[in-house]
Amino acid sequence: MTSEDRLRQQLEFVIEIDRLKQVTRRVFLTDGSRRENDAEHSWHLAVMAVLLQEHVSDEDEEGDAPLDLTRTLHMLLIHDLVEIDAGDTFAFDEAAQVGKAQRENKAADRIFAMLPGDQAGEWRGVWDEFEERRTKEARYAVALDRLLPIVQNYCSRGKAWREHGVTADQVLARLPSLIAVSGPLGRLAERLVREAVDRGDLSPARCE
Amino acid sequence: MTSEDRLRQQLEFVIEIDRLKQVTRRVFLTDGSRRENDAEHSWHLAVMAVLLQEHVSDEDEEGDAPLDLTRTLHMLLIHDLVEIDAGDTFAFDEAAQVGKAQRENKAADRIFAMLPGDQAGEWRGVWDEFEERRTKEARYAVALDRLLPIVQNYCSRGKAWREHGVTADQVLARLPSLIAVSGPLGRLAERLVREAVDRGDLSPARCE
Repeated sequence: MTSEDRLRQQLEFVIEIDRLKQVTRRVFLTDGSRRENDAEHSWHLAVMAVLLQEHVSDEDEEGDAPLDLTRTLHMLLIHDLVEIDAGDTFAFDEAAQVGKAQRENKAADRIFAMLPGDQAGEWRGVWDEFEERRTKEARYAVALDRLLPIVQNYCSRGKAWREHGVTADQVLARLPSLIAVSGPLGRLAERLVREAVDRGDLSPARCE
Repeated sequence: MTSEDRLRQQLEFVIEIDRLKQVTRRVFLTDGSRRENDAEHSWHLAVMAVLLQEHVSDEDEEGDAPLDLTRTLHMLLIHDLVEIDAGDTFAFDEAAQVGKAQRENKAADRIFAMLPGDQAGEWRGVWDEFEERRTKEARYAVALDRLLPIVQNYCSRGKAWREHGVTADQVLARLPSLIAVSGPLGRLAERLVREAVDRGDLSPARCE
């Protein structure tokens, strides 16, 4: 394949992923004015990955190899591309979790196959790594993906939480993967959840 | 400063930059349905930086040091943060260019100063590097920032170009910084501009 053919395929991919800007999440902007989309979300997480590294670097269980920030960024930038086909699945919608992995795998099959062969394999590998949470880069990326919506809900007075009847129990149940990666970031998330409950923006538990 | 104080400042920054999602650019999404915002734009450029590296790596004039992709990504992720205060300045609006550097420098002073001291200095340096186009990382980042709106205008039948009476002459005049970084990416941009003119989506020159 010539360099020109590769570039043609890459251009198609650049155009295809513009659609991520139209995949709407449940979470609102911090000012509550509208819901955010997947492209904005991925950008925000990537900035956080650069910003907050110091809070994970001391807790490396895998020897001295430093965190590969470029790989974490690559992961965060593409982790939601599958939602172009599969749509956003709200973390607290249990019914919607059924078939999610299958839908997203099928989407990954289509989307990454648009790339030149070597990149198709490499990028699919990066996406799989995020999904499987096997490496510290993936676990850091997932941790940030847990933290950000808590910050956004906290700032928007629990707008998405209230809209979907999410409780503190449910939010806290998703935190162990954040706490395992970073004590400070985990404690920050717990504090925001606690304050949201105190302010009445988040119900402590489901009242049934 | 304790780690907790640092994290508090970083959290303020994470919340502050959510506002980038509300800074609207002139350029439309590829399907022309709406204008894009700076956060989406920054995400799209960052993905392109990972994707298109191979088209610059052979043309390194500065010896053997490979492109520092992490630094390029950091630059692209934060290059438009100043527009939270300064707003988006349309590249083809000559009147709006007056005072742009001053407005943006003032914004950079405020926004990066929100970070803990060491990061404030480092991130400001990364932003300055992008603005000054001194390094190959900065020149690659700027090149992508030139290329993407051409792709988006091409796909949306020249929607932003037509709306603002932009001509092919004006678009081509901004390409040397792209061509200098990458022959293939430069030729791609020229081809898209030529095709847009052929299809009647872009005037070749201003008719006065």
